[in-house]
Amino acid sequence: MLTLDAHPSGRHFLQIPGPSPVPDRILRAMSLPTIDHRGPEFGVLGQKLLAGIQQIFKTRHPVIIYPASGTGAWEAALANVASPGDLVLMYETGHFSSLWHKMATRLGVKTEFLSLPGTDDTGLPVTWRNGVQADLIEKRLREDSSHQIRAVCVVHNETSTGATSDIAAVRRAIDAAGHPALLMVDTISGLACADFRHDEWGVDVTISGSQKGLMLPPGISFNAISPKAIEASKQSKMPKSYWAWDEILESNKTGYWPYTPNTNLLYGLHEAIEMILEEGLDNVFARHQRWGAGVRAAVNAWGLPIQCADPAVYSPVLTGVITPAGVDADAIRRLIYQRFDMSLGMGLGKVKGRMFRIGHLGDCNDLTLMATLSGAEMGLKLSGVKIAGSGVQAAMDYFMAHPQQSGLRAAA
Amino acid sequence: MLTLDAHPSGRHFLQIPGPSPVPDRILRAMSLPTIDHRGPEFGVLGQKLLAGIQQIFKTRHPVIIYPASGTGAWEAALANVASPGDLVLMYETGHFSSLWHKMATRLGVKTEFLSLPGTDDTGLPVTWRNGVQADLIEKRLREDSSHQIRAVCVVHNETSTGATSDIAAVRRAIDAAGHPALLMVDTISGLACADFRHDEWGVDVTISGSQKGLMLPPGISFNAISPKAIEASKQSKMPKSYWAWDEILESNKTGYWPYTPNTNLLYGLHEAIEMILEEGLDNVFARHQRWGAGVRAAVNAWGLPIQCADPAVYSPVLTGVITPAGVDADAIRRLIYQRFDMSLGMGLGKVKGRMFRIGHLGDCNDLTLMATLSGAEMGLKLSGVKIAGSGVQAAMDYFMAHPQQSGLRAAA
Amino acid sequence: MLTLDAHPSGRHFLQIPGPSPVPDRILRAMSLPTIDHRGPEFGVLGQKLLAGIQQIFKTRHPVIIYPASGTGAWEAALANVASPGDLVLMYETGHFSSLWHKMATRLGVKTEFLSLPGTDDTGLPVTWRNGVQADLIEKRLREDSSHQIRAVCVVHNETSTGATSDIAAVRRAIDAAGHPALLMVDTISGLACADFRHDEWGVDVTISGSQKGLMLPPGISFNAISPKAIEASKQSKMPKSYWAWDEILESNKTGYWPYTPNTNLLYGLHEAIEMILEEGLDNVFARHQRWGAGVRAAVNAWGLPIQCADPAVYSPVLTGVITPAGVDADAIRRLIYQRFDMSLGMGLGKVKGRMFRIGHLGDCNDLTLMATLSGAEMGLKLSGVKIAGSGVQAAMDYFMAHPQQSGLRAAA
Amino acid sequence: MLTLDAHPSGRHFLQIPGPSPVPDRILRAMSLPTIDHRGPEFGVLGQKLLAGIQQIFKTRHPVIIYPASGTGAWEAALANVASPGDLVLMYETGHFSSLWHKMATRLGVKTEFLSLPGTDDTGLPVTWRNGVQADLIEKRLREDSSHQIRAVCVVHNETSTGATSDIAAVRRAIDAAGHPALLMVDTISGLACADFRHDEWGVDVTISGSQKGLMLPPGISFNAISPKAIEASKQSKMPKSYWAWDEILESNKTGYWPYTPNTNLLYGLHEAIEMILEEGLDNVFARHQRWGAGVRAAVNAWGLPIQCADPAVYSPVLTGVITPAGVDADAIRRLIYQRFDMSLGMGLGKVKGRMFRIGHLGDCNDLTLMATLSGAEMGLKLSGVKIAGSGVQAAMDYFMAHPQQSGLRAAA
Repeated sequence: MLTLDAHPSGRHFLQIPGPSPVPDRILRAMSLPTIDHRGPEFGVLGQKLLAGIQQIFKTRHPVIIYPASGTGAWEAALANVASPGDLVLMYETGHFSSLWHKMATRLGVKTEFLSLPGTDDTGLPVTWRNGVQADLIEKRLREDSSHQIRAVCVVHNETSTGATSDIAAVRRAIDAAGHPALLMVDTISGLACADFRHDEWGVDVTISGSQKGLMLPPGISFNAISPKAIEASKQSKMPKSYWAWDEILESNKTGYWPYTPNTNLLYGLHEAIEMILEEGLDNVFARHQRWGAGVRAAVNAWGLPIQCADPAVYSPVLTGVITPAGVDADAIRRLIYQRFDMSLGMGLGKVKGRMFRIGHLGDCNDLTLMATLSGAEMGLKLSGVKIAGSGVQAAMDYFMAHPQQSGLRAAA
Repeated sequence: MLTLDAHPSGRHFLQIPGPSPVPDRILRAMSLPTIDHRGPEFGVLGQKLLAGIQQIFKTRHPVIIYPASGTGAWEAALANVASPGDLVLMYETGHFSSLWHKMATRLGVKTEFLSLPGTDDTGLPVTWRNGVQADLIEKRLREDSSHQIRAVCVVHNETSTGATSDIAAVRRAIDAAGHPALLMVDTISGLACADFRHDEWGVDVTISGSQKGLMLPPGISFNAISPKAIEASKQSKMPKSYWAWDEILESNKTGYWPYTPNTNLLYGLHEAIEMILEEGLDNVFARHQRWGAGVRAAVNAWGLPIQCADPAVYSPVLTGVITPAGVDADAIRRLIYQRFDMSLGMGLGKVKGRMFRIGHLGDCNDLTLMATLSGAEMGLKLSGVKIAGSGVQAAMDYFMAHPQQSGLRAAA
Repeated sequence: MLTLDAHPSGRHFLQIPGPSPVPDRILRAMSLPTIDHRGPEFGVLGQKLLAGIQQIFKTRHPVIIYPASGTGAWEAALANVASPGDLVLMYETGHFSSLWHKMATRLGVKTEFLSLPGTDDTGLPVTWRNGVQADLIEKRLREDSSHQIRAVCVVHNETSTGATSDIAAVRRAIDAAGHPALLMVDTISGLACADFRHDEWGVDVTISGSQKGLMLPPGISFNAISPKAIEASKQSKMPKSYWAWDEILESNKTGYWPYTPNTNLLYGLHEAIEMILEEGLDNVFARHQRWGAGVRAAVNAWGLPIQCADPAVYSPVLTGVITPAGVDADAIRRLIYQRFDMSLGMGLGKVKGRMFRIGHLGDCNDLTLMATLSGAEMGLKLSGVKIAGSGVQAAMDYFMAHPQQSGLRAAA
Repeated sequence: MLTLDAHPSGRHFLQIPGPSPVPDRILRAMSLPTIDHRGPEFGVLGQKLLAGIQQIFKTRHPVIIYPASGTGAWEAALANVASPGDLVLMYETGHFSSLWHKMATRLGVKTEFLSLPGTDDTGLPVTWRNGVQADLIEKRLREDSSHQIRAVCVVHNETSTGATSDIAAVRRAIDAAGHPALLMVDTISGLACADFRHDEWGVDVTISGSQKGLMLPPGISFNAISPKAIEASKQSKMPKSYWAWDEILESNKTGYWPYTPNTNLLYGLHEAIEMILEEGLDNVFARHQRWGAGVRAAVNAWGLPIQCADPAVYSPVLTGVITPAGVDADAIRRLIYQRFDMSLGMGLGKVKGRMFRIGHLGDCNDLTLMATLSGAEMGLKLSGVKIAGSGVQAAMDYFMAHPQQSGLRAAA
């Protein structure tokens, strides 16, 4: 028997910024019997999924679904449009943009990695506390008069920091520079939580994954692709097969895939799309914004710095909390895990041990967040962190003052 | 599709005093395929269940398992030992003892219904704020020199009030009176939450159900029966068949039942027994006691009266909260349901609208209770109830000061 | 871990005449979280269930849903309309009618038990190979000029023999005799497999259960009741409370029950009703009739006697197969269980060891039955039973010649 | 609601050679809540999985687990050991070896594709009816005196034909030629059905997937890698990141992965490993061999050619059945799907429409196969195919004569 099937009393609180808590409805859908991926039912399912996922990305163009985690979709994006030796312009917003940058390097792509310089008084890198600065991108593109830069790569919602980036501004920057570079955006943790508009914002490749706003377990990832990206892919010399868009696009026409898809996770995706579209994407975004505001009210009351230094780009998905210098944030997380059966997100890379992350996404509601904030507040206190005031009270005040507008159980 | 399979965001908080939240492990077990209730596997399962459930009741004597809810087990207890016209002495501790009393009357049994007189300053009946007064029972039994009273019937944990009763004291009262009456105890909502000792306390028939401390959905109920009760059942003239112990006892010898048992709920019972015995009954009791203390800390901080007026018999299963006169407790509950997707227990019978009940049982942990108390506190405030202070803060203080001792996820 | 969660390769074939194999869809529904049985969602569910189940019984009158197995609903029927000492006329069609008769006796009701006399050349009682003979009932009622007989009790589908009874004919017999007796019918294993018409056939109390045609696990049972039965219940002097219709009828008006209902099984009932009504009751009946015909083709090819001696009343639910004298049918069943992981129904009561029963109900299709017949045929051969020819071939011939008309996967 | 959750009566028979029917136990495990892939529980799970999967591959060396389907693991194998322009020697045994060959070409690897020439009297390519001819490989390697060939790539169990290949013989051929080429083997559909010995047979990279013998849904795939393969990977110049072994090996040391793993499928893998090792690998292999023999007995009785022309390498996983010339095998499959709710495998690539495939793997037992063969036999007849005799009878005869030795329900 799986040790996971053991029985501490009560449910674990999985309050990391993804994998998010999976709604039971999705777990139930995933337990349907696996079907023949070449049979007639599958084609019907496939076509329904491909149409539905376009609505989530707000695109009329194709969305590729990979049986792979989000990291695979990063590679797919680069491998389809770039060739070894191509130059791509990336922007450091945190750990995940850094990993994507590292991947590009491994793939033989030349990179430039823009960022804001320095650290601030918290000791954290400034660029890990802010979103993309579109003016830096515009400046660099203007310098690239020979159009060596093949693509601009940015992260929409930095899962390691809790800062989003203004993608429309990046698009404007590229246009203002009159540069032909493709715009590639990672919204792995932003999709279906934070507003995202693939077509309207002129994104060429959007990368996402299943285990965040879509509320699925990990294992599926996406490339939403513009006609310009498809055109570019025909020139790419990067060796690839699994990630290659061409055969998938051909096969998708009838609702199938060229190789075995991730059938049972696709059942879950079907449910997720239905749940999200039924509530309405704008309602879903507002719901996450409100949760974020409630959580930030708590962090502010504690007197601890929110990692995202720019209120204009606070993430609706997660909130990074900077712990006082000299306090090991991971020790606090460990205590909370052991005393209160809750997982909070760890500080990654350059901010390891200096912060923790509270996820407010997935199968969640106000009381889940009150539980989360209670657990965090008790953990901080038990760890000896001085807090200015009750975050729990502040969050209650916020939630009382701002009623939830959607995603509620129907009144009887 | 079942409306219940709809998708408000997040899990409902079922904080009524039963049916309690069912652990996923039990729901998973219940989804195993139904087997032949006359086949060889079933007999093995049956014998394992019958041995396990004895440990939960702390008895070496038989426990009858009915495919029926707890109300059925009440009837079974009366129907097996009493005959129409027999006199039984019952004690009013609240709504459920009153319902049992009403049932006895319907069955043609003569009853006397002891209670404490009057109402107190809250306007609530005094007898609905206390446990059984064993001295009243002793007094009445002493008067019954001709031994007309066939049985004494009391409720161990009054689900409608949050007061327990001292069963050992009732036993002592019967013995002190030198009276041969059978002792019949309803611990439907007490079993596997509050200490209960069928053999040691000399109980003749213990009635319980599946949907409280055993953490199953409703549908199974129990009669734990002493040799004296079995002897008495041979004289009973109450017409009965479904409830009759004799055929069940005979069939149980090989692990079977005389009629179709509730197979899939029995799978759940198997898991429940395994979970409880693995943690240890005393640990389970302590866990519920601690939760009760935390919740009462909150209610005290609010400045609202706890319905159970006798701290010696506070229930570890639920806490009744009396709302101020003139405030409709059901309106508060409705607001909490609609705003925060949480169910609290309603005031029943004589206390309808005057109180609500917080369940602290089933698949639960500290953070579940913090969510619960947050929801209740917000609901009180939004309903205009003046509260003295932060119950949420008081509960956090209690939980921080008193670490949980069992039922925790194993440290890694 | 539950031993049932062990891992023989492949699924067990549960081909007994109930509990029937439960569709995964129903098991999934049953795993939804338990809700507050006094909350607003529950009332909506309850009203939907109560309306839906009427359609299954073909009645405009109330259907009582008990958290109990079918045996409980037998008792409920008797306890609500009879008083101790009343006379009821019952008819022996097999083991289950005998058990109901025994129950009536235990409840203090006087009974007469009609039957066909004698045994035939198979050594089996003739009355266990036929349906109810309505003329015997009419004759007896005509003799009862003082109308001492309070009710006529018959079984619609004898689960122990595979013979149905003509309920409309019984109704006509009662009417022809001009007798006021109530008509009480057990269709525990017939409902939702064989045509049944509570209102049209003038049934006063119909008893049924969850674990047969409704394809649920055991644990729920039913009384469909006519206005005349309700009227009669007001005179009944049988002590009862759990089974009493009055409080349930009152509470059902708003979709609730007077005591805790079997919540998670009700979720399953919801799915079952939806599945059955969507296919259409007549289609469901035809589907079972066709299965029965296919199975009987096999038994005929084997040259073994079908237990039901009257082709006009062959059960669409199960087929009883008489084994040659001197062969222990239970030994054959055991071998099949061990070699082929299939459960067949045992011979009960007077036919123990002389026959086995093949269930063709529940979550089943043509290939399930081909598997079943293959297993039975191999078991017969391995047990040394001489068979005349290939039952498997005969069933294939039948199924090829008679295409299934409903309950199929939608063509793509 | 998912259309898949509709309700044809009974379970679909998924008798394709993978994805195989998933045992309920595995589906249940997959429905456990998703946990933090960086938390302490996950590391324990990861280490247990990595140790267990080694036993399945019979290796003491690392096994890489990818969140990807089998096609991804093909690419991973090539990408880690080859560089663009490298020469690999592949062998055409059917559709899947052809797809792998095509992939190698897309990745910029030069290939040679050995095969047996011509078609035989069935009109099918001879090389699609046989396993790898090791002598052809030895011959080619001996010619390669300058050791240009970097790797030899063969398929262990050709899912498109039902022929296995003698991997030990390929190893001997390489050794006899004194050639340093790596041996890379696809046993995607062979693992945990057919005997496979990564270490003993000197395989350098073994590729496999989750959705065949491991009985999981698709979505996980594997590279088992020898020290020599790891050494070779350090020289590879193929751009890659997701597939790169180095970071995964490093991260696996503590039971974690460098990017988000497929958590819920890993729960299923845990169960699969436990089920397989508990039965014993040799028992599992024998069970599949016996099933294959039973199915082939049926095909022989029908008088239809088994696609695998060499009895020495019959697959224990699936059997390819060649339909008479002029008969569209896909039309037969369609009829079977619509009439009997069973999926059979289609003819792929060069044999499309000329054959169908019967899978005998996954959650299966003798009666499942009897159902399968009955469905196939009825489908053949209804399609007008003349068959020589009863395949169903032949399979029953085989199964009766050869009792199953493991994977049975424990005798009671």
